[in-house]
Amino acid sequence: MKRRYAILAPGHFVADAKTAHGVIAYSSDETVAVIDPQTAGKRVVDVVPHLHSEAPIVATVAEALRYDPTSLLIGLAPKGGALPPDWRAAILAAIDAKLEIVNGLHDMLGEDPEFAAAARRAGTTIWDVRKPPDVPLFRGAVYDVATPTLLLVGNDCAVGKMTVALELCRAAERAGSRAAFVPTGQTGIMIAGWGISIDRVIADFAPGATESLVLYAAQSKPDLIVVEGQGSINHPAYAPVTLALMFGSAPDALVLVCDPLRDHIDGYSTPILGYRELIRLHEALLATIKPARTIGIALNTRGLSDAEARAQIERAQTETQLPADDVVRNGPDKLYASISPQLRRERPCAV
Amino acid sequence: MKRRYAILAPGHFVADAKTAHGVIAYSSDETVAVIDPQTAGKRVVDVVPHLHSEAPIVATVAEALRYDPTSLLIGLAPKGGALPPDWRAAILAAIDAKLEIVNGLHDMLGEDPEFAAAARRAGTTIWDVRKPPDVPLFRGAVYDVATPTLLLVGNDCAVGKMTVALELCRAAERAGSRAAFVPTGQTGIMIAGWGISIDRVIADFAPGATESLVLYAAQSKPDLIVVEGQGSINHPAYAPVTLALMFGSAPDALVLVCDPLRDHIDGYSTPILGYRELIRLHEALLATIKPARTIGIALNTRGLSDAEARAQIERAQTETQLPADDVVRNGPDKLYASISPQLRRERPCAV
Repeated sequence: MKRRYAILAPGHFVADAKTAHGVIAYSSDETVAVIDPQTAGKRVVDVVPHLHSEAPIVATVAEALRYDPTSLLIGLAPKGGALPPDWRAAILAAIDAKLEIVNGLHDMLGEDPEFAAAARRAGTTIWDVRKPPDVPLFRGAVYDVATPTLLLVGNDCAVGKMTVALELCRAAERAGSRAAFVPTGQTGIMIAGWGISIDRVIADFAPGATESLVLYAAQSKPDLIVVEGQGSINHPAYAPVTLALMFGSAPDALVLVCDPLRDHIDGYSTPILGYRELIRLHEALLATIKPARTIGIALNTRGLSDAEARAQIERAQTETQLPADDVVRNGPDKLYASISPQLRRERPCAV
Repeated sequence: MKRRYAILAPGHFVADAKTAHGVIAYSSDETVAVIDPQTAGKRVVDVVPHLHSEAPIVATVAEALRYDPTSLLIGLAPKGGALPPDWRAAILAAIDAKLEIVNGLHDMLGEDPEFAAAARRAGTTIWDVRKPPDVPLFRGAVYDVATPTLLLVGNDCAVGKMTVALELCRAAERAGSRAAFVPTGQTGIMIAGWGISIDRVIADFAPGATESLVLYAAQSKPDLIVVEGQGSINHPAYAPVTLALMFGSAPDALVLVCDPLRDHIDGYSTPILGYRELIRLHEALLATIKPARTIGIALNTRGLSDAEARAQIERAQTETQLPADDVVRNGPDKLYASISPQLRRERPCAV
């Protein structure tokens, strides 16, 4: 059954509701309303044009109920993943209206006594997307996966690694290949309906959890596996998750996703690494695990003029001698066409 | 109150009871007996001479009770950290005899219904050493710690990183400096009585947990902070924990601990990196976080002849142009004396 989402993102929908935007853009579930008093009265397309959604924005859960949602989606993933306390009333109102709650925060709403009791009373359920299953230690079975595996890495959090993964999968499908998207974070899981939020797994087991995802994706014998990336290799807080994905997914190739204008890791004083340093560092780390080459650069040029975007894409190509493009601005087909022969060379199966 | 430990390590005491050996060698708590049917009748010193302990080895918990223990310590930390099922009976016997249970496995014995009920009945307690407290996200406060901070890194698991940390602390104290040992794994926690098992922390929070440990150690204004290392930067399963310690502790300097004879990561086909590659990789990763230099090599030459050990130490010195020694074979004072001026230069405080 398809979900009909009301997305809760009060005060944050335009600026930083990454989860909300990802689900609206890529989920096969429908978004029927967004709850955000700050922009209430407009449509999604009026405030975030690139999402191309006519869904209405309303101020309260009660108003959202007019659009017949099945589920309330928590549309925000703040640093640390705690629930903003002033969202409790809205969530309780949604539970009382028998909506399913879909939650990607680190805070497990199903373990909150008040929410759990309310859900029992209302006869509805809470899906804590980030709650990890029992996962095994990494054992190396992923080295035997025959399908070429591509991992997305990036120069920071929230630069578009999931978007690039999904767009490259679309391009692969259009080119006649069956591509399996492997979700590794809360938004990817909401979009695909399966996956593990690797940042939520106990550190010792994070590579093993990643391995189990790739093994699962390989079972359907796709032509290509595309693993959603997380964080950045020099992110002070999230780099261990990035490394767990690199070692656990044992990729054959990397695509580097970058915001070309960032100079510092968001929220920290850490400088952003240049393209060539990022490529060197990732490839050095993977050298003894399973060597993988970086085969393309995906730039996030949102907010730039066409000329500025073109200049950034050219700079990335010149600096790295690799194909580069913005797969949202220009569509993913060109970048996919450039990288797929290389991907086939890295692991000689049908792509 | 000091504990009197009976250590449970059936069939494993000699070969791979790393936790047992660490506690016997370094804890201020006393080990009064070891339970291991395979070597029962001997003393610890007969089967593991370098531990210099006269404690008797017995076959059962019942026999161990004659030596008046206060606590049963689970002396093993197998990969994945699960409880061997045939140890349950021994643990239940110890609980029935009102012993405290001290457990460093990933499996939380206090959450096991049978053990928990037995402990309640017997009026005793279960200390799950690896159980993490609530920890914050990494925030960068550790960058302001004024005390020089040394992190141990290594070429594999179980090469002696904790031992080197503890020996360097002893040498520092003998040289008139106050050194704070920061425990990051189950054995270190058992020895020091505090700490967090970073491998057990949710991946997103592992650097923050490490930061909180260093901030705690800095409160007593020691002259030197020595952070216990874990895993290895190219360990397929444990490297994310290694990276969390590197980024979360923000060290001023590294000491590289190596078994010079290993050629593969234990349990995997991954080749061991050479000294210079290890140094390059660690320093490249830390470059944008907080630059740190490698200032010494600690070799684990157990099992080698004196001449072989000397040759390995010379090779490490020649290859790296850094001071190198085996701090167990030759004592830690010489290596400490060689590295402490450099450590003082990396962060100019009193050492």
